[in-house]
Amino acid sequence: MMKIAIIGATGTLGKAVVKQLASRHEIIEVGNTSGQYQVDITDINSVQKLFSQIGKIDAIVSTTGKLHFGPLQELTPEQFQVGLRDKLMGQINLALVAQHHLNDGGSITLTSGILTEEPILQGANATTVNAALEGFVRAAAIELKRGIRINVVSPTVLEESLANFGAFFYGFEAVPASRAAMAYSRSVEGAQTGRVYQVW
Amino acid sequence: MMKIAIIGATGTLGKAVVKQLASRHEIIEVGNTSGQYQVDITDINSVQKLFSQIGKIDAIVSTTGKLHFGPLQELTPEQFQVGLRDKLMGQINLALVAQHHLNDGGSITLTSGILTEEPILQGANATTVNAALEGFVRAAAIELKRGIRINVVSPTVLEESLANFGAFFYGFEAVPASRAAMAYSRSVEGAQTGRVYQVW
Repeated sequence: MMKIAIIGATGTLGKAVVKQLASRHEIIEVGNTSGQYQVDITDINSVQKLFSQIGKIDAIVSTTGKLHFGPLQELTPEQFQVGLRDKLMGQINLALVAQHHLNDGGSITLTSGILTEEPILQGANATTVNAALEGFVRAAAIELKRGIRINVVSPTVLEESLANFGAFFYGFEAVPASRAAMAYSRSVEGAQTGRVYQVW
Repeated sequence: MMKIAIIGATGTLGKAVVKQLASRHEIIEVGNTSGQYQVDITDINSVQKLFSQIGKIDAIVSTTGKLHFGPLQELTPEQFQVGLRDKLMGQINLALVAQHHLNDGGSITLTSGILTEEPILQGANATTVNAALEGFVRAAAIELKRGIRINVVSPTVLEESLANFGAFFYGFEAVPASRAAMAYSRSVEGAQTGRVYQVW
């Protein structure tokens, strides 16, 4: 049994990951404003406080992060920062701090998305941020100490999100969050590192 | 004959690109503190001012951008911002502004690097930023209007840079800047878009 912190635990994907892992492990649910603990992943001090509060753990899973969607012609640096600050740097903040708080052999699992490989209109910020996260994981995997692993799950659009985001994803096969959640299990309960688990 | 602005024109790689293209085209050399025009690519206002000054052009090439190198264990968000603000967002700023100032059928060519695919110790910032740039180019390519193209060149370490950076790149085959420069020619003078030109 592992002690696993799930950041974004109360979101659509996070809830499915909790359900996938809770029967076998102790889960700590972390949210922005909900869950057992709260964190602002864009603020390194808030991330450090979170890890001081929860103590030593075996794995962290992040299923959170904001992006900006909008036409390239009108994109401003400020809009582009939404994804860089939140989904990218927020998850990197989690990894940078977690590496010092995980038990030996622990793991870090982040979330990118299918737009890394399949760009869509209005998706430049998303593709950039997702590609960056996959790069970060490739690089961090070779530097982490004490047997700590890092992977990233890249899901396609979730069936549960089609009502809100379906218009961006015509022609994309959606998957249920429960299926995407299985990839997080492979990352946390498996032995690989530096991997992108594509779920589509 | 095209009118081509080269940002980073006075650097090692930029000089080779100028040499590669100058016999066939009109070159505008842009630097941070040198060249015919100066720009701070991290400042969108400075980038906008540059394009107002140089007027309509057919292509921009960027061979510039700072990264942070250092061990993952000690990486701070501030250090990580070096690459995000400069090599990543700086080049994206160039693309966002250039799309409105290029002639129909014009092109944008950015620079990533081999660390996207081949991570090295102390290179997490570089791999993240380079991967992000390649993602941006894939996404921007499908949204640009008026036949404007965008590509990115990913060179390995340059022979000319081995004296300074060789210790990071043991076992990497270096290429002369003049060979890397040929990929910029293929991007600017060719017809592809959304491409990563790997030079290694």
